[in-house]
Amino acid sequence: MTLTSAARALLDSAAHAHLVTIGPDGAPRIAVVWVGLEGEEIVAAHLSADQQKLHNIRRDPRVALSIESERLSPIGLREYLVVHGHARVTEGGAPQLLQRLAHTYLGPDVTFPPFENPPAGFVTRITIDRVGGNGQWTEPDT
Amino acid sequence: MTLTSAARALLDSAAHAHLVTIGPDGAPRIAVVWVGLEGEEIVAAHLSADQQKLHNIRRDPRVALSIESERLSPIGLREYLVVHGHARVTEGGAPQLLQRLAHTYLGPDVTFPPFENPPAGFVTRITIDRVGGNGQWTEPDT
Repeated sequence: MTLTSAARALLDSAAHAHLVTIGPDGAPRIAVVWVGLEGEEIVAAHLSADQQKLHNIRRDPRVALSIESERLSPIGLREYLVVHGHARVTEGGAPQLLQRLAHTYLGPDVTFPPFENPPAGFVTRITIDRVGGNGQWTEPDT
Repeated sequence: MTLTSAARALLDSAAHAHLVTIGPDGAPRIAVVWVGLEGEEIVAAHLSADQQKLHNIRRDPRVALSIESERLSPIGLREYLVVHGHARVTEGGAPQLLQRLAHTYLGPDVTFPPFENPPAGFVTRITIDRVGGNGQWTEPDT
Protein backbone atom coordinates (compact mmCIF):
# COMPACT_ATOMS: atom_id res chain seq x y z
CA MET A 1 0.00 0.00 0.00
CA THR A 2 1.45 3.33 -1.11
CA LEU A 3 -0.13 6.59 -0.03
CA THR A 4 -0.90 9.06 -2.78
CA SER A 5 0.81 12.43 -2.70
CA ALA A 6 -2.60 13.88 -1.78
CA ALA A 7 -2.75 11.67 1.32
CA ARG A 8 0.79 12.59 2.36
CA ALA A 9 0.08 16.28 1.76
CA LEU A 10 -3.06 16.08 3.92
CA LEU A 11 -1.15 14.38 6.75
CA ASP A 12 1.50 17.11 6.53
CA SER A 13 -1.01 19.96 6.30
CA ALA A 14 -2.63 22.16 8.94
CA ALA A 15 -5.75 19.95 8.94
CA HIS A 16 -6.41 18.45 12.36
CA ALA A 17 -6.50 14.73 13.04
CA HIS A 18 -9.30 13.12 15.03
CA LEU A 19 -7.34 10.42 16.86
CA VAL A 20 -9.35 7.48 18.17
CA THR A 21 -8.07 5.12 20.83
CA ILE A 22 -9.86 2.32 22.66
CA GLY A 23 -10.78 2.96 26.29
CA PRO A 24 -10.52 0.42 29.11
CA ASP A 25 -14.21 -0.41 28.62
CA GLY A 26 -13.74 -1.05 24.90
CA ALA A 27 -15.54 2.15 23.92
CA PRO A 28 -13.84 4.64 21.62
CA ARG A 29 -12.13 7.80 22.85
CA ILE A 30 -11.40 10.74 20.53
CA ALA A 31 -8.91 13.60 20.75
CA VAL A 32 -8.29 16.22 18.08
CA VAL A 33 -4.53 16.55 17.67
CA TRP A 34 -1.77 17.97 15.50
CA VAL A 35 -0.06 15.33 13.39
CA GLY A 36 2.81 15.15 10.94
CA LEU A 37 4.74 12.56 8.99
CA GLU A 38 8.15 11.19 9.92
CA GLY A 39 9.06 8.86 7.10
CA GLU A 40 6.22 6.37 6.92
CA GLU A 41 4.96 7.00 10.46
CA ILE A 42 2.35 9.50 11.61
CA VAL A 43 3.51 11.36 14.72
CA ALA A 44 1.79 13.38 17.44
CA ALA A 45 3.30 14.99 20.54
CA HIS A 46 2.11 15.17 24.16
CA LEU A 47 3.68 17.23 26.94
CA SER A 48 1.79 15.50 29.75
CA ALA A 49 2.15 11.84 30.69
CA ASP A 50 -1.29 11.88 32.26
CA GLN A 51 -3.30 11.56 29.10
CA GLN A 52 -5.95 8.95 28.65
CA LYS A 53 -4.95 8.38 25.05
CA LEU A 54 -1.42 7.36 26.07
CA HIS A 55 -2.76 4.90 28.63
CA ASN A 56 -5.16 3.57 26.02
CA ILE A 57 -2.43 3.03 23.42
CA ARG A 58 -0.24 1.17 25.90
CA ARG A 59 -3.19 -1.13 26.69
CA ASP A 60 -4.37 -1.57 23.10
CA PRO A 61 -2.19 -0.17 20.30
CA ARG A 62 -4.97 -0.18 17.70
CA VAL A 63 -5.78 3.38 16.67
CA ALA A 64 -7.68 5.11 13.90
CA LEU A 65 -7.61 8.71 12.79
CA SER A 66 -9.55 10.83 10.36
CA ILE A 67 -8.72 14.11 8.66
CA GLU A 68 -11.04 16.26 6.59
CA SER A 69 -9.84 17.35 3.18
CA GLU A 70 -10.70 20.68 1.58
CA ARG A 71 -11.86 18.77 -1.51
CA LEU A 72 -15.47 17.89 -2.22
CA SER A 73 -16.67 14.77 -4.01
CA PRO A 74 -18.68 15.15 -7.26
CA ILE A 75 -21.99 15.25 -5.32
CA GLY A 76 -20.66 17.79 -2.82
CA LEU A 77 -19.62 15.57 0.09
CA ARG A 78 -16.37 16.38 1.82
CA GLU A 79 -13.47 14.06 1.12
CA TYR A 80 -11.67 12.67 4.14
CA LEU A 81 -8.87 10.31 4.97
CA VAL A 82 -9.17 7.52 7.52
CA VAL A 83 -6.06 5.73 8.73
CA HIS A 84 -6.14 2.48 10.68
CA GLY A 85 -2.88 1.63 12.35
CA HIS A 86 -1.07 0.61 15.46
CA ALA A 87 0.68 3.08 17.70
CA ARG A 88 3.55 3.10 20.12
CA VAL A 89 4.49 5.80 22.60
CA THR A 90 8.11 6.91 22.94
CA GLU A 91 9.51 9.15 25.68
CA GLY A 92 10.89 12.62 25.02
CA GLY A 93 10.96 14.88 21.99
CA ALA A 94 7.53 16.42 22.46
CA PRO A 95 8.60 20.10 22.57
CA GLN A 96 10.70 19.73 19.42
CA LEU A 97 7.90 18.01 17.52
CA LEU A 98 5.30 20.50 18.78
CA GLN A 99 7.53 23.36 17.61
CA ARG A 100 7.81 21.80 14.15
CA LEU A 101 4.05 21.17 13.95
CA ALA A 102 3.24 24.66 15.31
CA HIS A 103 4.94 26.12 12.25
CA THR A 104 2.40 24.25 10.15
CA TYR A 105 -0.66 24.69 12.36
CA LEU A 106 -0.15 28.16 13.83
CA GLY A 107 2.36 29.97 11.63
CA PRO A 108 6.03 30.18 10.66
CA ASP A 109 6.98 32.58 13.47
CA VAL A 110 5.19 30.91 16.37
CA THR A 111 7.09 29.66 19.42
CA PHE A 112 5.39 26.61 20.88
CA PRO A 113 4.92 25.48 23.61
CA PRO A 114 4.38 29.12 24.68
CA PHE A 115 6.24 28.77 27.99
CA GLU A 116 9.75 28.09 29.29
CA ASN A 117 11.20 24.67 30.11
CA PRO A 118 8.48 22.37 28.82
CA PRO A 119 8.69 18.74 29.91
CA ALA A 120 10.24 16.25 27.47
CA GLY A 121 6.85 14.59 27.09
CA PHE A 122 5.94 11.76 24.77
CA VAL A 123 5.54 11.12 21.06
CA THR A 124 2.90 8.81 19.61
CA ARG A 125 4.12 7.02 16.47
CA ILE A 126 1.54 5.38 14.27
CA THR A 127 2.33 2.70 11.72
CA ILE A 128 -0.27 2.75 8.96
CA ASP A 129 -1.98 -0.60 8.40
CA ARG A 130 -4.90 0.40 6.21
CA VAL A 131 -6.36 3.53 4.66
CA GLY A 132 -9.99 4.38 3.98
CA GLY A 133 -12.40 7.25 3.90
CA ASN A 134 -13.67 9.15 0.90
CA GLY A 135 -11.02 10.15 -1.65
CA GLN A 136 -8.08 8.80 -3.64
CA TRP A 137 -5.63 8.04 -0.85
CA THR A 138 -3.69 5.01 -2.08
CA GLU A 139 -1.93 4.34 -5.37
CA PRO A 140 -3.48 1.53 -7.41
CA ASP A 141 -1.56 -1.74 -7.02
CA THR A 142 0.73 -2.29 -9.97
CA MET B 1 -26.02 17.46 31.89
CA THR B 2 -27.14 20.43 29.80
CA LEU B 3 -25.35 21.35 26.60
CA THR B 4 -24.27 24.96 26.26
CA SER B 5 -25.72 27.00 23.44
CA ALA B 6 -22.24 26.84 21.88
CA ALA B 7 -22.39 23.03 21.81
CA ARG B 8 -25.88 23.01 20.32
CA ALA B 9 -24.85 25.62 17.74
CA LEU B 10 -21.83 23.51 16.74
CA LEU B 11 -24.00 20.38 16.36
CA ASP B 12 -26.40 22.37 14.18
CA SER B 13 -23.67 24.03 12.13
CA ALA B 14 -21.98 23.07 8.85
CA ALA B 15 -19.06 21.53 10.76
CA HIS B 16 -18.65 17.85 9.97
CA ALA B 17 -18.88 15.11 12.57
CA HIS B 18 -16.31 12.33 12.79
CA LEU B 19 -18.53 9.43 13.82
CA VAL B 20 -16.82 6.50 15.49
CA THR B 21 -18.38 3.06 15.77
CA ILE B 22 -16.90 -0.20 17.00
CA GLY B 23 -16.07 -2.81 14.36
CA PRO B 24 -16.64 -6.56 14.75
CA ASP B 25 -13.01 -6.95 15.85
CA GLY B 26 -13.39 -4.27 18.55
CA ALA B 27 -11.29 -1.75 16.63
CA PRO B 28 -12.72 1.69 15.91
CA ARG B 29 -14.21 2.68 12.57
CA ILE B 30 -14.62 6.33 11.53
CA ALA B 31 -16.88 8.04 9.01
CA VAL B 32 -17.18 11.78 8.45
CA VAL B 33 -20.89 12.59 8.28
CA TRP B 34 -23.43 15.38 8.31
CA VAL B 35 -25.27 15.68 11.61
CA GLY B 36 -28.03 17.77 13.11
CA LEU B 37 -30.09 17.97 16.26
CA GLU B 38 -33.63 16.68 16.69
CA GLY B 39 -34.62 17.64 20.20
CA GLU B 40 -31.97 16.10 22.42
CA GLU B 41 -30.80 13.54 19.86
CA ILE B 42 -28.06 13.87 17.27
CA VAL B 43 -29.19 12.55 13.89
CA ALA B 44 -27.42 11.42 10.73
CA ALA B 45 -28.92 9.97 7.53
CA HIS B 46 -27.87 7.09 5.30
CA LEU B 47 -29.39 6.18 1.93
CA SER B 48 -27.75 2.76 1.75
CA ALA B 49 -28.43 -0.12 4.12
CA ASP B 50 -25.08 -1.64 3.30
CA GLN B 51 -22.97 0.57 5.50
CA GLN B 52 -20.51 -0.81 7.97
CA LYS B 53 -21.42 1.84 10.55
CA LEU B 54 -25.06 0.69 10.60
CA HIS B 55 -24.01 -2.92 11.11
CA ASN B 56 -21.63 -1.80 13.83
CA ILE B 57 -24.28 0.20 15.70
CA ARG B 58 -26.70 -2.72 15.62
CA ARG B 59 -23.98 -4.95 17.12
CA ASP B 60 -22.68 -2.41 19.67
CA PRO B 61 -24.64 0.85 20.11
CA ARG B 62 -21.77 2.71 21.76
CA VAL B 63 -20.64 5.56 19.53
CA ALA B 64 -18.51 8.67 19.84
CA LEU B 65 -18.25 11.67 17.61
CA SER B 66 -16.05 14.72 17.41
CA ILE B 67 -16.55 18.08 15.74
CA GLU B 68 -13.99 20.83 15.32
CA SER B 69 -14.95 24.32 16.43
CA GLU B 70 -13.76 27.49 14.73
CA ARG B 71 -12.63 28.78 18.13
CA LEU B 72 -9.08 28.55 19.40
CA SER B 73 -8.06 28.07 23.02
CA PRO B 74 -5.89 30.74 24.70
CA ILE B 75 -2.67 28.99 23.60
CA GLY B 76 -3.89 28.56 20.04
CA LEU B 77 -5.23 25.01 20.06
CA ARG B 78 -8.46 24.35 18.26
CA GLU B 79 -11.51 23.77 20.44
CA TYR B 80 -13.54 20.65 19.70
CA LEU B 81 -16.55 18.82 21.00
CA VAL B 82 -16.57 15.10 21.75
CA VAL B 83 -19.87 13.31 22.36
CA HIS B 84 -20.11 9.83 23.82
CA GLY B 85 -23.50 8.24 23.38
CA HIS B 86 -25.50 5.29 22.30
CA ALA B 87 -27.15 5.06 18.92
CA ARG B 88 -30.11 3.35 17.36
CA VAL B 89 -30.92 3.01 13.68
CA THR B 90 -34.45 3.69 12.43
CA GLU B 91 -35.78 2.90 8.96
CA GLY B 92 -36.84 5.58 6.49
CA GLY B 93 -36.63 9.35 6.46
CA ALA B 94 -33.10 9.62 5.08
CA PRO B 95 -33.88 11.76 2.00
CA GLN B 96 -35.87 14.25 4.08
CA LEU B 97 -33.14 14.55 6.71
CA LEU B 98 -30.42 14.80 4.05
CA GLN B 99 -32.37 17.59 2.35
CA ARG B 100 -32.60 19.48 5.64
CA LEU B 101 -28.92 18.98 6.42
CA ALA B 102 -27.90 19.87 2.85
CA HIS B 103 -29.35 23.32 3.40
CA THR B 104 -26.87 23.72 6.25
CA TYR B 105 -23.89 21.95 4.71
CA LEU B 106 -24.18 22.84 1.03
CA GLY B 107 -26.44 25.87 0.76
CA PRO B 108 -30.05 27.05 1.02
CA ASP B 109 -30.90 26.29 -2.60
CA VAL B 110 -29.38 22.83 -2.91
CA THR B 111 -31.50 19.78 -3.76
CA PHE B 112 -30.10 16.70 -2.11
CA PRO B 113 -29.81 13.80 -2.81
CA PRO B 114 -29.04 15.03 -6.34
CA PHE B 115 -31.05 12.32 -8.09
CA GLU B 116 -34.66 11.13 -8.44
CA ASN B 117 -36.41 8.58 -6.23
CA PRO B 118 -33.82 8.07 -3.52
CA PRO B 119 -34.37 5.06 -1.24
CA ALA B 120 -36.01 5.69 2.14
CA GLY B 121 -32.76 4.75 3.85
CA PHE B 122 -31.99 4.90 7.52
CA VAL B 123 -31.48 7.47 10.26
CA THR B 124 -28.99 7.07 13.08
CA ARG B 125 -30.22 8.63 16.33
CA ILE B 126 -27.67 9.25 19.05
CA THR B 127 -28.58 9.78 22.69
CA ILE B 128 -25.87 11.84 24.38
CA ASP B 129 -24.41 10.18 27.49
CA ARG B 130 -21.36 12.31 28.07
CA VAL B 131 -19.58 15.29 26.54
CA GLY B 132 -15.87 16.04 26.41
CA GLY B 133 -13.23 17.60 24.23
CA ASN B 134 -11.70 21.03 24.52
CA GLY B 135 -14.15 23.89 25.13
CA GLN B 136 -17.11 24.92 27.28
CA TRP B 137 -19.72 22.42 26.14
CA THR B 138 -21.85 21.78 29.22
CA GLU B 139 -23.50 24.16 31.64
CA PRO B 140 -22.11 24.04 35.18
CA ASP B 141 -24.27 21.94 37.50
CA THR B 142 -26.51 24.14 39.62
